[in-house]
Amino acid sequence: MAADTILIRGLKGIPEILPGMNLGGKILAALELAGIGAAGGAEPASPQGAIIVVVAQKVVSKSEGCLIRLDDVVPSVQAQAWADAHQKDPRVVEVVLRQARRVVRMDRGILIVETHQGFVCANAGVDTSNAPDGTVVLLPPDPDKSADDLRRVLEAACGRQVGVIISDTFGRPWRLGLTNVAIGVSGLSPFIDYRGQVDSSGRSLQATMMATADELAGAAELVMGKTAGIPAALIEGFHGGRATGSGREMIRPPEGDLFR
Amino acid sequence: MAADTILIRGLKGIPEILPGMNLGGKILAALELAGIGAAGGAEPASPQGAIIVVVAQKVVSKSEGCLIRLDDVVPSVQAQAWADAHQKDPRVVEVVLRQARRVVRMDRGILIVETHQGFVCANAGVDTSNAPDGTVVLLPPDPDKSADDLRRVLEAACGRQVGVIISDTFGRPWRLGLTNVAIGVSGLSPFIDYRGQVDSSGRSLQATMMATADELAGAAELVMGKTAGIPAALIEGFHGGRATGSGREMIRPPEGDLFR
Repeated sequence: MAADTILIRGLKGIPEILPGMNLGGKILAALELAGIGAAGGAEPASPQGAIIVVVAQKVVSKSEGCLIRLDDVVPSVQAQAWADAHQKDPRVVEVVLRQARRVVRMDRGILIVETHQGFVCANAGVDTSNAPDGTVVLLPPDPDKSADDLRRVLEAACGRQVGVIISDTFGRPWRLGLTNVAIGVSGLSPFIDYRGQVDSSGRSLQATMMATADELAGAAELVMGKTAGIPAALIEGFHGGRATGSGREMIRPPEGDLFR
Repeated sequence: MAADTILIRGLKGIPEILPGMNLGGKILAALELAGIGAAGGAEPASPQGAIIVVVAQKVVSKSEGCLIRLDDVVPSVQAQAWADAHQKDPRVVEVVLRQARRVVRMDRGILIVETHQGFVCANAGVDTSNAPDGTVVLLPPDPDKSADDLRRVLEAACGRQVGVIISDTFGRPWRLGLTNVAIGVSGLSPFIDYRGQVDSSGRSLQATMMATADELAGAAELVMGKTAGIPAALIEGFHGGRATGSGREMIRPPEGDLFR
């Protein structure tokens, strides 16, 4: 199941993305720069030619216009109180609370919520970095649909199998530092499931379902960085094979989650 | 800070590792097969020639003899009761509890503990897969020291900078599936710290410290798999630069952790 060799490249030449911009077209141009050209009417290449494109959530959100102008936001009493207590912008706190289906923890200045999409993360994924002046960037309303839409554009133009992952930067309990994870997935399975397979001694493997899409998203982050203007990466050599899959199915169902 | 292109290869030819075996020597032989040869008396190569070697915890543990024979384990009353309630081997449960400094959750058949090393993970990292018959494999007592020891061996023989990561497979709240993380680190910083840097609009980035070593460990998992007998991977092209670093510092301090 595992690949032999994986090559990960940052996709260069993608301009600053503004609302309404054709993100798929910009990624296609960057893929061509990287030698993954348009194939015209050619047959789709073999799975060996499959590629995975990882795209940062922020440029997806911007292209979809998922921005809020802070001047238009009137903070609630709750948002104002939390902001006062922790030196935050009350309008940003208000936006975060509006993106939350439920507050998971609100303690020591940290606000962890379950978003309307179902993700559990700090500040509902609302981000002020790399946002146009006076605005904040929200998560896309349906990252799997965003991934689907991009995959169709890229596959049609490249004439080969393309998997698309929309990645975002999340923290996690117990370990310091953030990692990129897959919030939207299209064209590949987000998991490799080893359950029922046997180890080298013939014993069946313990419950082992690897969150491959998260590992791919994290791997792509290594070439994307935060300040280098590389909002997408190309992964070659990972033979996951065409599959239906989504980022939604990577969310642990609440009834099996001991930390909500 | 981010690399342009990263190449990840599974290291082939490493035999089944048994207690007392010279793991560093086996990895060196596999590196030579991969074209990373011994350099004799040559000067250490430039940082561009730096490599990262990711090694699965299980072979490190085996080489260090971190195995427990289950026939030697007498389960406590607590271990027996938990095992009975959840169809587990009471001797394995006993081993898990002995590896625990503290139980974080013991609910719905899931046992999450803080290990003596400080990691919060399921079953204290005790593993029955790929273990010799009648035994279980424990985490190495000091994975950073294991990484240091390996790094010294590899660097001396290869004549270039080597970073070593000992990886293990952990679950996490909120998201399904497991990912590989770095439990031991030597010769590189486990983080890239963007705090204080500015985004493309000149705004300082929000608290963003990327857990690079975890992303590298996860990336390596993509070529290691669970059943393919590839217990180590080679990562080229990641210009982290020589740094002191440890896996220990990736553990979130309890006072800043809302989920203990």
